[in-house]
Amino acid sequence: MKNQYIDISLPLDSELPVWPGDPNAIIERVSSIGQGDGHNSSRINSSLHWGTHLDAPYHIVETGWTIDQIPLAVLIGPVQVIEIPEVREIKADHLKNFKIQGCKRLLVKTQNSAFWNESPLKFHQDFTAFSKDAAEYLLDCGIKLIGIDYLSLDLYSAIDLPVHHLLYQQNVVGVEGLDLRQVSPGNYHLICLPLNIKSGDGAPVRAVLLKQ
Amino acid sequence: MKNQYIDISLPLDSELPVWPGDPNAIIERVSSIGQGDGHNSSRINSSLHWGTHLDAPYHIVETGWTIDQIPLAVLIGPVQVIEIPEVREIKADHLKNFKIQGCKRLLVKTQNSAFWNESPLKFHQDFTAFSKDAAEYLLDCGIKLIGIDYLSLDLYSAIDLPVHHLLYQQNVVGVEGLDLRQVSPGNYHLICLPLNIKSGDGAPVRAVLLKQ
Repeated sequence: MKNQYIDISLPLDSELPVWPGDPNAIIERVSSIGQGDGHNSSRINSSLHWGTHLDAPYHIVETGWTIDQIPLAVLIGPVQVIEIPEVREIKADHLKNFKIQGCKRLLVKTQNSAFWNESPLKFHQDFTAFSKDAAEYLLDCGIKLIGIDYLSLDLYSAIDLPVHHLLYQQNVVGVEGLDLRQVSPGNYHLICLPLNIKSGDGAPVRAVLLKQ
Repeated sequence: MKNQYIDISLPLDSELPVWPGDPNAIIERVSSIGQGDGHNSSRINSSLHWGTHLDAPYHIVETGWTIDQIPLAVLIGPVQVIEIPEVREIKADHLKNFKIQGCKRLLVKTQNSAFWNESPLKFHQDFTAFSKDAAEYLLDCGIKLIGIDYLSLDLYSAIDLPVHHLLYQQNVVGVEGLDLRQVSPGNYHLICLPLNIKSGDGAPVRAVLLKQ
């Protein structure tokens, strides 16, 4: 029982920022041993697209996979982690600096990761995300799962969500809100398991890496 | 991408029964492409002990591990699945029919599994669970993770939760609400990942098996 897993899921509590306009996410204790109850129990009330979460393609594309249609074999397996620092918009040319052809799963660590060091946490609009031509390049490379260390694959200003549309139309799955602070670039084994939400448009996930 | 994973997590929707007295669990669509929104998005409002879920020992024992303190190496690794049919209370003598000494992770399939075939689903009080002497035997065997195919390790009538207390005092973790209908007894690789709830007393999980 000594495997060296790296947890790349944000700790979930009510302090974690939500997407602007979403109601707050709440995790609250409803019974407490300290107050004389027989057990500690809590409830969650949140968007399915909160914290470290998976978008089902159906989030954006009506004919796309729902969460429970995504093959587990897409969510578990070899993954490449690359780092693209000091860039606001990730373009195809940035990705071409890495050997990602034939890579099925790709996680991109950016300057976003520093946002998770703040206390208290707050939502940042100036996060790093992908350009449309980067999405096209990811498709060309055969990527099936793409992850990033903030809450959208598209820039905040890209309100038509071109990256989401391009990728999800091809049933690529997107993992948003990853915590890659402890991860060095390299090759890992990914386990990224969303809750099994029936017909879900998204789901919070627990995601971990094992060094290869 | 052809691994043969077996999903042992119940599909989550608002129809899944809750523990008597708990408020309903709700998964609801809050924006919908079909109604002119830019995306499909939903929210969840549920107990952390709903559906297929993990109890942190802290659920019952104030000094026990919280969800985020459970080592990932406990949640991932070899597991034995045994079947004990036609029994209402699983006693140590039932367990002694199997070679489970030295087994770190054990999932028990019972007649409970048939409850998940019903439509609509409803809560059953007459579910199968463990006796106190079974819990003592599990500790003797060195079990670190124990799972069952209904919503408690204790019988419904065991309101003082003796099995929970015995196991969780030793930081054994319990997986409740497993869907073992498609699983034959045998040896598997388990991946059982709860949401990373900060200081959580429990968490919904996605759990899968890979045949060894």
